[in-house]
Amino acid sequence: MTDDKLREECGVLGIYSPGNELIAPMMGFGLVALQHRGQESAGIATSSNGSMNYYKDMGLVQDVFNNKILERLQGDVSIGHVRYSTTGESYVSNAQPLVVNYKGGSIALAHNGNLVNAGEIRSRLEDEGSIFQTSIDSEVIANLIARKYSKGFKQAITETISEIHGAFALTIICEDKLIGVRDANGLRPLCLGKIDNGYVLASESCALDVVGAEFIRDIEKGEMVIIDDEGVESIIYDNTKRKAHCIFEYVYFARPDSKIDGESVYITRRDAGRVLAEEYKIDADIVIAVPDSGIDAAIGYAEASGIPYGVGLIKNKYIGRTFIKPDQKSREIAVRLKLNPLKENIKDKRVIMIDDSIVRGTTSKKIVEALRNAGAKEVHVLVSSPPVVHSCYFGIDTPERKELVGAVKTVDEICEMIGADSLGYISVEGLMHSIHKKPSELCVACFNGDYPIEVPKTASKFMFEANKAVEIKNT
Amino acid sequence: MTDDKLREECGVLGIYSPGNELIAPMMGFGLVALQHRGQESAGIATSSNGSMNYYKDMGLVQDVFNNKILERLQGDVSIGHVRYSTTGESYVSNAQPLVVNYKGGSIALAHNGNLVNAGEIRSRLEDEGSIFQTSIDSEVIANLIARKYSKGFKQAITETISEIHGAFALTIICEDKLIGVRDANGLRPLCLGKIDNGYVLASESCALDVVGAEFIRDIEKGEMVIIDDEGVESIIYDNTKRKAHCIFEYVYFARPDSKIDGESVYITRRDAGRVLAEEYKIDADIVIAVPDSGIDAAIGYAEASGIPYGVGLIKNKYIGRTFIKPDQKSREIAVRLKLNPLKENIKDKRVIMIDDSIVRGTTSKKIVEALRNAGAKEVHVLVSSPPVVHSCYFGIDTPERKELVGAVKTVDEICEMIGADSLGYISVEGLMHSIHKKPSELCVACFNGDYPIEVPKTASKFMFEANKAVEIKNT
Amino acid sequence: MTDDKLREECGVLGIYSPGNELIAPMMGFGLVALQHRGQESAGIATSSNGSMNYYKDMGLVQDVFNNKILERLQGDVSIGHVRYSTTGESYVSNAQPLVVNYKGGSIALAHNGNLVNAGEIRSRLEDEGSIFQTSIDSEVIANLIARKYSKGFKQAITETISEIHGAFALTIICEDKLIGVRDANGLRPLCLGKIDNGYVLASESCALDVVGAEFIRDIEKGEMVIIDDEGVESIIYDNTKRKAHCIFEYVYFARPDSKIDGESVYITRRDAGRVLAEEYKIDADIVIAVPDSGIDAAIGYAEASGIPYGVGLIKNKYIGRTFIKPDQKSREIAVRLKLNPLKENIKDKRVIMIDDSIVRGTTSKKIVEALRNAGAKEVHVLVSSPPVVHSCYFGIDTPERKELVGAVKTVDEICEMIGADSLGYISVEGLMHSIHKKPSELCVACFNGDYPIEVPKTASKFMFEANKAVEIKNT
Amino acid sequence: MTDDKLREECGVLGIYSPGNELIAPMMGFGLVALQHRGQESAGIATSSNGSMNYYKDMGLVQDVFNNKILERLQGDVSIGHVRYSTTGESYVSNAQPLVVNYKGGSIALAHNGNLVNAGEIRSRLEDEGSIFQTSIDSEVIANLIARKYSKGFKQAITETISEIHGAFALTIICEDKLIGVRDANGLRPLCLGKIDNGYVLASESCALDVVGAEFIRDIEKGEMVIIDDEGVESIIYDNTKRKAHCIFEYVYFARPDSKIDGESVYITRRDAGRVLAEEYKIDADIVIAVPDSGIDAAIGYAEASGIPYGVGLIKNKYIGRTFIKPDQKSREIAVRLKLNPLKENIKDKRVIMIDDSIVRGTTSKKIVEALRNAGAKEVHVLVSSPPVVHSCYFGIDTPERKELVGAVKTVDEICEMIGADSLGYISVEGLMHSIHKKPSELCVACFNGDYPIEVPKTASKFMFEANKAVEIKNT
Repeated sequence: MTDDKLREECGVLGIYSPGNELIAPMMGFGLVALQHRGQESAGIATSSNGSMNYYKDMGLVQDVFNNKILERLQGDVSIGHVRYSTTGESYVSNAQPLVVNYKGGSIALAHNGNLVNAGEIRSRLEDEGSIFQTSIDSEVIANLIARKYSKGFKQAITETISEIHGAFALTIICEDKLIGVRDANGLRPLCLGKIDNGYVLASESCALDVVGAEFIRDIEKGEMVIIDDEGVESIIYDNTKRKAHCIFEYVYFARPDSKIDGESVYITRRDAGRVLAEEYKIDADIVIAVPDSGIDAAIGYAEASGIPYGVGLIKNKYIGRTFIKPDQKSREIAVRLKLNPLKENIKDKRVIMIDDSIVRGTTSKKIVEALRNAGAKEVHVLVSSPPVVHSCYFGIDTPERKELVGAVKTVDEICEMIGADSLGYISVEGLMHSIHKKPSELCVACFNGDYPIEVPKTASKFMFEANKAVEIKNT
Repeated sequence: MTDDKLREECGVLGIYSPGNELIAPMMGFGLVALQHRGQESAGIATSSNGSMNYYKDMGLVQDVFNNKILERLQGDVSIGHVRYSTTGESYVSNAQPLVVNYKGGSIALAHNGNLVNAGEIRSRLEDEGSIFQTSIDSEVIANLIARKYSKGFKQAITETISEIHGAFALTIICEDKLIGVRDANGLRPLCLGKIDNGYVLASESCALDVVGAEFIRDIEKGEMVIIDDEGVESIIYDNTKRKAHCIFEYVYFARPDSKIDGESVYITRRDAGRVLAEEYKIDADIVIAVPDSGIDAAIGYAEASGIPYGVGLIKNKYIGRTFIKPDQKSREIAVRLKLNPLKENIKDKRVIMIDDSIVRGTTSKKIVEALRNAGAKEVHVLVSSPPVVHSCYFGIDTPERKELVGAVKTVDEICEMIGADSLGYISVEGLMHSIHKKPSELCVACFNGDYPIEVPKTASKFMFEANKAVEIKNT
Repeated sequence: MTDDKLREECGVLGIYSPGNELIAPMMGFGLVALQHRGQESAGIATSSNGSMNYYKDMGLVQDVFNNKILERLQGDVSIGHVRYSTTGESYVSNAQPLVVNYKGGSIALAHNGNLVNAGEIRSRLEDEGSIFQTSIDSEVIANLIARKYSKGFKQAITETISEIHGAFALTIICEDKLIGVRDANGLRPLCLGKIDNGYVLASESCALDVVGAEFIRDIEKGEMVIIDDEGVESIIYDNTKRKAHCIFEYVYFARPDSKIDGESVYITRRDAGRVLAEEYKIDADIVIAVPDSGIDAAIGYAEASGIPYGVGLIKNKYIGRTFIKPDQKSREIAVRLKLNPLKENIKDKRVIMIDDSIVRGTTSKKIVEALRNAGAKEVHVLVSSPPVVHSCYFGIDTPERKELVGAVKTVDEICEMIGADSLGYISVEGLMHSIHKKPSELCVACFNGDYPIEVPKTASKFMFEANKAVEIKNT
Repeated sequence: MTDDKLREECGVLGIYSPGNELIAPMMGFGLVALQHRGQESAGIATSSNGSMNYYKDMGLVQDVFNNKILERLQGDVSIGHVRYSTTGESYVSNAQPLVVNYKGGSIALAHNGNLVNAGEIRSRLEDEGSIFQTSIDSEVIANLIARKYSKGFKQAITETISEIHGAFALTIICEDKLIGVRDANGLRPLCLGKIDNGYVLASESCALDVVGAEFIRDIEKGEMVIIDDEGVESIIYDNTKRKAHCIFEYVYFARPDSKIDGESVYITRRDAGRVLAEEYKIDADIVIAVPDSGIDAAIGYAEASGIPYGVGLIKNKYIGRTFIKPDQKSREIAVRLKLNPLKENIKDKRVIMIDDSIVRGTTSKKIVEALRNAGAKEVHVLVSSPPVVHSCYFGIDTPERKELVGAVKTVDEICEMIGADSLGYISVEGLMHSIHKKPSELCVACFNGDYPIEVPKTASKFMFEANKAVEIKNT
C-alpha cells in the first residue's frame, strides 16, 4: 500500500508564551498541522519555573494526546515533535522530545534531521563512559550539551551545535527558555512566528497559521535563536557553509499552504507544472493529477497549456495505518481501493497525468494500467521533479540506490516499465526555476549527487541499531 | 468540528460468488469503498451450506476487521454494512448486518434507509408477543420475514417488503441466496455488478469498481432480485409508486466516481457548477472550493465562467474521530486546523467559493472569515444545492427544522450572517437539470417539502429509543 | 492449566431499594462476591420509573464495570449476573442480564441454570414466527413472558415458569418490581436478604453479607417472590415436585462463607472431612489440602483423626486468565508454577492429601508426583465427594462421560493412574450426612444417575449453537 | 483497599543456560513465581553471542508477556525483574531490567534494593557530564560500570559495587555472562540453583523450584558470582561488613515455600506462632488467621496451644488492581467484600486472630469490628512481628514515621484503637528465635532503629523525582 514517495522523518514545534493557558492545546493542534511530516510517534514537553513535564507515545497526535493529558502539560514554554521512522522496529523509547536530566535541571530536545558524525561523537563519548539508552542520534546532542553544561547553557549549546555535522532543525527547552537551531547549511526548515504573548518556532509556517501566529521570518542557516522574556536573541554560530535548503520540501514534504525560506510551496508546485507545460508540449484532452500531491502541478500545467484540468483519480480517504493486509491475490483490489479512476473523465480521452515524484515506479505502473482499463486512449505521465538517483543522508528516508528506478533505468525504460505513452521529468533547472532559487541555495543531491557536506562512505541510518540491545516490539 | 453537512446513514454490500476464496477480502475492501456512507460501525455476514458466520463492531471497517477475522468469514455468499448513527448513544447491538435465527435457519439483513411505518408494525408484532432487542427499524423487517417463513422465503420476503413503507435498500442472505431489494420509490440507491464467478450488489458503483465487478444496472424501484446458482431472478413487487431517487446522493452523499441511477455523480456535480455559472455571473479572480465536496462544482464553474480554478483552502487530512476536544477558547484554533486558507491564492483576490450545501451555516461563516483574514478582497459564496428547508424521513440525518438556516432565514439574511459579499444557491430546476432527470424521478422534499410518500406527523428517528431499555456506552 | 473441577455456570443478584444511591456500587461489589460462580461475562440492569439502563461485557466484574458506568446504573431496582460459559466460543451477545423490549416496556432477566425443554419451546415459538438473537436458553423465557404479557406480568411470569422445565434461579425486573424465581425442584440456589430500605436476592448468602443485608430465608422450590413497595409477595407456583438441591454447591461451587438451604457450606465441607476420617483411617504424619477448595475438609479430617493439619502445597495467586500458554515442553514448569509443594511439611512424611473432587484425574496425578519429588514417603489421597459418574443437565459444565475418570475406571485403577499409595472417596451416604440432608432433598445425579426430572436423551448444552448463525470472536 | 502491609519493591531472576530453548518460558514462569515481590512492571532481557533483546512493560508478568514475545527472547543467558513502585506516578521508563549501551556492547541490570549513596554518586557523575533518563537509582550503577569499562567488565563491576552503598541484589548480563551480586550486608536475598545445562539466580528459592532448578546455596553478603561456560566463579568483594539479612523477608515478603539464607520461611512463620503461644497464653475457643499471610503462624499457635485452628475470614480472590473505587459511602462494603467472616467459626466464640504485622492499624480495626458483628464473644489479636517503628531505607516501602501506629501509640492504645479485647506482639527476641538466627545476622532496624549501615538524614525514596522531568502517565 506504499505511496512510492520519499518520507520526511520529523516535524518540530516550539511555543514560548508564559501565562498562556492555551499553550497545551496550541501545541496539540500545531503538531496535527505538522502531522504529514511524521505519523509514527508524537510527544510534547512543557516547562515552567524549571519544572518539566512530558508525554510521548506511538501513534498520531490525536491518538497520543487527549484533553486530560494536555491539561497536565500546561506551562510557560513547550516543544513538540512528530516522528516518522524508517524501520519496521520503532519504539517509544525513540520517540521525541528526548528529555534528559543533567546536573541541576532538565533539558528537552526535538530534532528533525540526521547527523553525519553522530557515530564518531558517540564513540568518543562512550570512551569517556557515557551510556546510551536510545538508538536516535539526538541522544548524542543531549549528551554533548550536558557535558558542557558548567560553561552555561548558551555556551554549551553553541559548542555542541558546532561539533555536530549534518542536518538539524532543533527546538530545545533549557532553563525555561525556548531555543531554536538550524544547521549550518539550513538543510531542514525552521521558521519563527509571533503570537500576542510570545513566539512560535515550527518546521513549517502552516503550523504558525493554525496556532494563530504571524509569520516573522525563517531561521537562517547556522543560526540559533534564544527566546525568553527579553525577546528573541539571534546568534549566528556558523556562517562558513553554503546555503543548501532541501529541495524536496518544495517537491513533496511540505504542505502547500506553507512558506519555506521565502517561497510559497503551493506556488512552486504550480509553477513546476507550468515549467512542465513548457518542457513537454503534449496534445491531450485532459490534465489529471495523482492525488493529493500532484494536484498543484496539474493545475499549473492546465493553466499554462490550455488543456482543461479535471479530476481523474478518486482517492479513498479512509485508508489508514490499520489496514486489512492484502495477500498476493487481493493486492490488486487493494490498489483499486486506494485510487479509483473517474471513468467519465478518462474514457476515450488522451490523458496527461501529473505526479510529483517517482521513486520505485511500482505504483505508477498500476495507476497507468488502471487508467487504460478505464478507457484512456493515451496516458502521458509527467513528473514535477527530476528522477531520484541518490540517497539522502540528511533526514529523508530514501530506499537503497538499487531500488531507485531513476538510478537504474533510463527514462525510456521507465516509460516502458510503467506502460505510459510518454514520460517526462521536469529538468533540474526547470524545478529550480519554479522554486525561484539559485542552485547554490538548494540541496539537490538526491537528483545530482552533489552533497553540500561530506557524507560518510559507510553511513547507515540504522548504525546505532547495529550493536545495540534491541527492545522487542509487541505487535 | 462538524462539517455542517447532512449525513447518509448507511451503505450496503452483497457478493454472491460460490467457491471464491477472495470473497472475504472483497467484502472488506468493498466496504471501505463505501465507508463515506457510514463511519460508526461495520459488519459482515457470510453463509455457505446453510451455515452462517458474522462479525460486527463499532469503528471504521479497517478498525473492525483484520485478516484473521476475514479468514473466518469465507463462504459462498456474503453481505456487509457500514453505519452512521445520528445519536450520541450508539451501540454495537444496533450494528448491522442484523442476524436472526428463525425456524430452520438464519437470515442476515443489511439495511440502508428508514421505514415510516416501523412503529405501527412493531406495535402490532408486540401485540402478538414479539420482543425486540435493538432500536433499529430493521429488526421489524426480520420479524416480519420470520413470521411468514412457512410460506417459503420468496413469498415471505415479498409480503414483508410490501408491508413496510419508506426508504430501503436491502441486501439479505437467506438459504444461501443473495437477495437485493429497493423500496417502491427507489429512494435509496442499489446497483448490480457482475464478477467472473458471481454477482455483486452495492449502494454505489464505486464499490463495484473496487471489487473488480462490471456494472450491469441499477436495481429498479419496487424490484427484488434473487441471486443464486440459477443467476439473477428479478421480481417487481410493487410498480404503483412514482420514482423518487434521493437528490442528495448527487449533491453530497455519493462518491464522485459512482454512477447512480444512470448518472455519473462527478458529472452532475460539475454540471451543477456550470449551471451556477449561468445563474450567477460574478466578476472575480479565482474560483475555489470548500474541499473536498465542493471541488467538482468549482471546476465546472471555472470551466463555464472562464475564471481560473485554484486551491483556496487546505484541508488537514489527519483529523479523525479521536480528536482533542477543543474547549471554547481553543475552538478557533481547531477550525484553522481543519481548513487553512492558501494565502497565495486568496490575498488581494476577488474569490468565488463554492460549497455543495449549507445546512446550519456556522462553518460557512468561519470559512468566509478565514478567507477575509487571508486577504480576500471579496468573497462570493455559491452553493451547488438549494437551501435545505425540510427534514428527511428516509434515512438521512437532518437537524431539526429550526436549526436549518435555509428554513429560518432568507438568502440575504444568510449572506449577512456568513459575512459574504454575495450568496447564491442553485435553483431547484437548475440542480435537476444538472442531474439530467425530471422532477418526477427525484425526491427533492428536503428542498421543497414535496414528500413522495406520506410521512408520519410525529415520526422521530429515535422513536424506538424512547421507551426502550438503554444500553450504557463505556466511553 | 485446568483445575480439573466442575464449573458452575452462573450467579444472579437483585436489589430492590428505591432512593438508595448506593444501589449501583452494591450491585458491583455483590457481583464480585459471586465472581467464583462465573468469570466470563458480567452485567447489570437497573430500572426506575419504567426506564431501564443496562451494561454488560466479557470479563471479570471489575474489568467490566468502573465508577463512571456504575453512576449511570443508578435506579430503584437492579439485577446482575456473572456468567461462565462452557464453550470456547463465547460472546457478548450471550452475556446477561438479557434485556428485551415488549409491548409497553422492558424486561430484564438474569438466569442461573439450564432448561431441559428449551428446545421444544423454542421450536414452537419459531413456528409462530419468533426470532432468536442469542444462543442462550434464557431468551426462550423472555419470549414466553412477552407473548403472555396482555394477561398482566404476574400471570405472564407464572405461566411462563410453569411451562419451562429444568433448573433455574431467576432474578427479573419488570414494571420496576424485583422478581425472584426458583425452579420446581429447587435445583439452583437463591436466597433473600433484607437491607434498611429494601431487599436483596442472591445466588449465595455471601453476597448478602457483602452488601450488608441480613439473611432472611432461602427461596423455596417452586416459589416466586415479587418485591415492590408493598413488600415481598410469595407465590408457590408449583409444589408438585420433590426437593432436589444441587449437592455440588456444597462440594465445590459455593463459597464456604455462604449458607445454602439452611446449611453452612464451610460446616458441610469440614464435616465431610470428619466423615472421611471415619471412613478412611490412615496412619500418617500430616494432613494437607489441595488449595483452596480442599482446605475445609482437610481441617475436618485433621480434627477428627488427630493427625496434624499443615500447609503442603503453595498456590500461586497471580495465575489468571491471560497466561503465557505453555507448550508441551514447558507444561511441566507451568504445573509447578501453580502448585509448589512445601518441602518442609512433605519431606520424609506420610502425607494424607485431601481434594474436594476428582473429575478427569489428570491434575491429581501431577500433584501426587510433585509430592513424591518433594520427598513424601507415602501419599494417600482422599476425596470429599464420591466419583463423578454422570453428566449434569442442570447448569453445570460436566465433561463428556468418557472423560469422567470415575465413570471409566475403578477406584483402584484411578489410584494406580494418579500414583497414590491409597485413594478413598467419601461415600454418597457419608457426604449426604455431612450436609445434614436426606437423599430426598438433594440432587445427587452426578454421583448416582438418579435425575430428579426427566432429561432429554439427546440434550446438548450447545443445541442452540448447532443451527444458529455464529458470531465470530475477535481473539 | 490497602492491605496495611509493608511492600517489597522488587524481585530479580537470572538464568544461564546456553542452547536451552526453554529459557524464555522458564524466565516467564520464574518471574510469575516472584510476582508477589512486585506487581507493577515486569521485564526480561536475553543475550546470546553479544546480541541482546529485551522487553518490559507495566503490569503483571502474564499481562506483559505472551508466547510471541517470549519466542523473541530466546538466548543463552537471561535476566528478569518484577517491580513494585511506591509512588502513584510510575512509568515504563522506570521498569527493569535497565538496558544500556556502552562502548562495545550492551549491559542489562536488574536490581532489588535501594542505595543510600546514589544521590552523591549521581551528583558526581552529572558533574562529569552524565545524563539520566530514569528516576531509578539503578541507573547510577549502569553509569559507573560504563565509566570503568576499559578496565574489563570484572574490574568495572567490582569497583562499582564497592562504591555503591545500601541494599542490592543484582542480576546482570555482560558479555554473555550472568553475574549475581549481593550487597556487603546481605540485606536483600539472592540464591543460586543448578539446572541440567546451567545455573539460576533468584531472589527466592521458590523460583528455583518452578524452573526445576536444584537449590545450591545462598549468595553470601559481599559476594559476586560470575557464571559462564567455565562454571560459577565466586568473588568476595567486601567482607568487612556484618551480616544483616532483612527480617521482614521472613515476616511477610517471601513466599512460605522459599528458603532464605538457610531457613524455611514457612517454618519460621509457624515457629513465630509457637513463640506467640508461649508469650501469650489466652483462654480461647478458636485460632484464626488474617489470610493469607497470617495462616502459618496461626497453625503454629494452634499446635502449641492446643486451641483448634479454623478458617475465620474468607478472602475474595477476585479483587485485583482494576477495582471499582469505593467512595466514602461504599467503602464499608468494599472492606466486607475483601474479607468476610465465617460466622460458623466466629459466632459465640472467643477468637484469637493472628496477623503477621500491623503497620497503620486501620485494617485491623475493621476486621475486629467485622468479627464482633459476626458474633465473636472475644477477639484477641496476636501479631507475629514486633511493632514497626522505624522507616526502611533498604528497598522496602514504609510509610512515614507518623503513620506507623507502632511509632506513635503504645500497645494498649493500639489495642483500644483496633477494638480488640487484648493485643500482643511477638518480642524481637522471640521473632529472632523463631528465625533461628542471631541478632548479629539480621537487620531489624524497622523494629529497633539499629541500622546496619549509616542512612542519610535526608534520604528520600523519591529524591530523583524531585528535580527531574516528569513523564505524564495516561490513566
